[in-house]
Amino acid sequence: MWLRNCWYVIAWDHEIPAADSDALFSRIVLNEPVLVLRKADGGFVALEDRCCHRLAPLSKGRREGDCVRCGYHGLKFDGTGRCIEAPGIPVVPEKARVRSYPVVLKNRWLFVWMGDPARADERLLPDNFSCDHPEWTHKPGYLHYDTPYLLICDNLLDFSHLSYVHEATLGGSTAIAQAVPKIERIGGPGQQGVKVTRHVPDVPPPPYYRKMRPIDSHVDRWFIYEFQLPGTLLMDSGGRPVTDAADDMSRAIRLHSCQTLTPETESSTHYFFQQSHPARVGDASLTEGIYQSLIAAFNEDRDMITAQHRNMLLQPDAPMLPLAMDGALVQFRRLLEQRLAEERSPGESTLHTGVGDR
Amino acid sequence: MWLRNCWYVIAWDHEIPAADSDALFSRIVLNEPVLVLRKADGGFVALEDRCCHRLAPLSKGRREGDCVRCGYHGLKFDGTGRCIEAPGIPVVPEKARVRSYPVVLKNRWLFVWMGDPARADERLLPDNFSCDHPEWTHKPGYLHYDTPYLLICDNLLDFSHLSYVHEATLGGSTAIAQAVPKIERIGGPGQQGVKVTRHVPDVPPPPYYRKMRPIDSHVDRWFIYEFQLPGTLLMDSGGRPVTDAADDMSRAIRLHSCQTLTPETESSTHYFFQQSHPARVGDASLTEGIYQSLIAAFNEDRDMITAQHRNMLLQPDAPMLPLAMDGALVQFRRLLEQRLAEERSPGESTLHTGVGDR
Amino acid sequence: MWLRNCWYVIAWDHEIPAADSDALFSRIVLNEPVLVLRKADGGFVALEDRCCHRLAPLSKGRREGDCVRCGYHGLKFDGTGRCIEAPGIPVVPEKARVRSYPVVLKNRWLFVWMGDPARADERLLPDNFSCDHPEWTHKPGYLHYDTPYLLICDNLLDFSHLSYVHEATLGGSTAIAQAVPKIERIGGPGQQGVKVTRHVPDVPPPPYYRKMRPIDSHVDRWFIYEFQLPGTLLMDSGGRPVTDAADDMSRAIRLHSCQTLTPETESSTHYFFQQSHPARVGDASLTEGIYQSLIAAFNEDRDMITAQHRNMLLQPDAPMLPLAMDGALVQFRRLLEQRLAEERSPGESTLHTGVGDR
Repeated sequence: MWLRNCWYVIAWDHEIPAADSDALFSRIVLNEPVLVLRKADGGFVALEDRCCHRLAPLSKGRREGDCVRCGYHGLKFDGTGRCIEAPGIPVVPEKARVRSYPVVLKNRWLFVWMGDPARADERLLPDNFSCDHPEWTHKPGYLHYDTPYLLICDNLLDFSHLSYVHEATLGGSTAIAQAVPKIERIGGPGQQGVKVTRHVPDVPPPPYYRKMRPIDSHVDRWFIYEFQLPGTLLMDSGGRPVTDAADDMSRAIRLHSCQTLTPETESSTHYFFQQSHPARVGDASLTEGIYQSLIAAFNEDRDMITAQHRNMLLQPDAPMLPLAMDGALVQFRRLLEQRLAEERSPGESTLHTGVGDR
Repeated sequence: MWLRNCWYVIAWDHEIPAADSDALFSRIVLNEPVLVLRKADGGFVALEDRCCHRLAPLSKGRREGDCVRCGYHGLKFDGTGRCIEAPGIPVVPEKARVRSYPVVLKNRWLFVWMGDPARADERLLPDNFSCDHPEWTHKPGYLHYDTPYLLICDNLLDFSHLSYVHEATLGGSTAIAQAVPKIERIGGPGQQGVKVTRHVPDVPPPPYYRKMRPIDSHVDRWFIYEFQLPGTLLMDSGGRPVTDAADDMSRAIRLHSCQTLTPETESSTHYFFQQSHPARVGDASLTEGIYQSLIAAFNEDRDMITAQHRNMLLQPDAPMLPLAMDGALVQFRRLLEQRLAEERSPGESTLHTGVGDR
Repeated sequence: MWLRNCWYVIAWDHEIPAADSDALFSRIVLNEPVLVLRKADGGFVALEDRCCHRLAPLSKGRREGDCVRCGYHGLKFDGTGRCIEAPGIPVVPEKARVRSYPVVLKNRWLFVWMGDPARADERLLPDNFSCDHPEWTHKPGYLHYDTPYLLICDNLLDFSHLSYVHEATLGGSTAIAQAVPKIERIGGPGQQGVKVTRHVPDVPPPPYYRKMRPIDSHVDRWFIYEFQLPGTLLMDSGGRPVTDAADDMSRAIRLHSCQTLTPETESSTHYFFQQSHPARVGDASLTEGIYQSLIAAFNEDRDMITAQHRNMLLQPDAPMLPLAMDGALVQFRRLLEQRLAEERSPGESTLHTGVGDR
């Protein structure tokens, strides 16, 4: 099962239709269909996309101002999920309502809170600053996976796969897999997770660096990222020519990446991502080039994880063998299990959100 | 589960190949494959489409007179389902037979009786007169649904959806949903069900009326139908210009519709339908126009019900909220449950078919 | 369930890439993904196609000499299935290994042993001699079935279906179904199964004989085959003009066929087959003609068995009615059940493989 008392990204800002558009946006999150409306005042509404009457999707109805009317029998719901009109029924019963979800936009990511609304706390949002920052430029990405979300978390928690899955794209050297990363448990205000620091000295620049600038020497590469619950990667990475002085960053490649995973169903996942370059470097073609490299590489991941998942479906009880490289993902899975256990337990008051706990 | 001791439509008359054709017709009804043969004498045979030997479909074999021969190992069955020849076997065992079903053609609908053959009673057939009547003209229709049959019954039992699902086709006014229908339990000889009477005064003529004749005023509309077990709608409907005297039907639109639902599997349904206009009005283009309007509207229903069903599959335990508009469908579901309970109970002798019970 | 302590064909020899190719071959057998490598020395390696670490298919990695490296995190496995390198891990744990399967090539068929490797015994291989014999010529065939393997065994164990399924191809007369075959239990060294002998005197030459030679008289046909566990058919068949003397084989059609079934999953099957003609008769066009006839006929089988399987899925508890023509398949299923029971029982030492038991 999934953690519920946390923020999940449901969409990029630009995916939600304008307030004066007739289009309705809906996406399944944690097996629940969720309708998102952009309100006239610029805010957002997130409602269960399932009429309380006969369970038809509200997104097949129509928007009326900041309300939505079911297209089956005409029930009309306001932004809180309350049914405010039911054709032929003078007094709408109080229990005629659909669930509404706390929703907040931060740096172009639209987050919904799928758990207890009273616990929703914006301090728990991840710091996806480069998604909307004057010093950073990117093109936003989205991929849909037909695999469970945890398998993709695993992938992102062990970059040794760059040497093999991404040999011809993001990797370019087996030294990435050979390097032993530093793994730390993190727990800032609300942001619980794992921090992974991997330095890879003196390797050829990876194939996709060529799109950014000509580099005629080996580089020292670094990948420093946090992977936070429920599934967000925030990464500072780059490479510096080995021929440059240690404090000379003038020719270094520097990138910041924000990626996040949202379970759709037990066996499918939404993946939102971007990799930013400094805004003062390059132009639109560089941004597009980085995006295309990322799409190519993330399709390599999806191919591999989908094949892995097919193998798991074939024999669901086949055990995995933990190895040293699994340090971060083992820690992350343990942390997730612990939080899940807390959500399940009756004494939920002991839940540690990381905010105000210390 | 489904009611078995009742008539289900398996096909329109014209769907069954001629007696001298090589083609074999088969359709799944209540999860059972059923083969239908038109006999040389004009009658029909309905057999289990599954050889008793190795379960191959007989419809993949060939017809031989009024018999059918399995295409796998050559067993030949007569119209009663008895195996009358088995290659290499001098004496065919008595138990070599497939099930045969009572079958009857009435007004172009071919009905099969899926329950106890001894109970099959033609007096229980619905009065689908306009499917074959000199005063009425129509073009027959068929749609396949990938949803359970009860969801489509629900749809047909609550016409408030016309205002929303069919806003641009059959509806044209929210007044349909506002009107409160009269709902009556019916139980004539064998025909148990619900009668729904809905009058909608002084509304714009619906978009599809334009295909029938120009009307420059509002109309008073009516929908008077019976919805009979297991799933047949028989409807008198129409509209009369409000400017005409109450007893002046000269410019009224009058229609008669017969529609029926036959479960295919737990999650799919056959839908046979027509909407007739008086034979003396219009020509083939009117008949075609009404048919096309109906197809367009019934695709709107199918889109909505399919989306509703997808939502139900996502969270099978999500409850529906009964509202005032559900009066007819709640009564119908209750009646169906009651009849199902009677079929399941050992004292089936207390079964009330509505024939001879009073 | 399936018999495990026996040989299954996983591929035709020519399907396995050369030792210097980058391509990797993988096929699912008994629900297990199996990777097959052709070694530099001409031998073969068969490994579980599922990395022990995170279960990714090794076949999505790359070959390195006679070893294979996983394409996810770079673990390298030798031909015994032992992990001999794991990036970033100085000492690879002993339990890091994938399963390896005994594998042997015999007459162009590559066999794997899915059970206890200690029991693998080449004396148990079937005598598929015509797959690789100077006196016989064929074109190898493969078909994939989306049905359980036993339904195809059934088909091959009762040739009465030739008269009906293959009326226009291999059959050509209802006399095949009328003829009563002799059925014998066989149990040579390891080869347990059923022998079926069917003589069909004085029938028209079947349609596909015309591709071989003009025959202007009726023929006496024969089909003599063994069907061995787990699912291999070895057949001598042919036809001789009835006008020729009993000992005159000069104008007879003579064929030898090897066919074998390998379960892929519970509901899908690999089918490897060939039908050979004497090498001194005809040329490449004859070989191709026989192959095309076989493909046409085997597609007729697949259509029928797939339709049969669909009927079985619709009502899984529908019983089959055993008839006289089922003699061979009933014996074979009984033999299989007996061997399965032996494999399941703790006292597996009593297993009779047929080798050295007498």
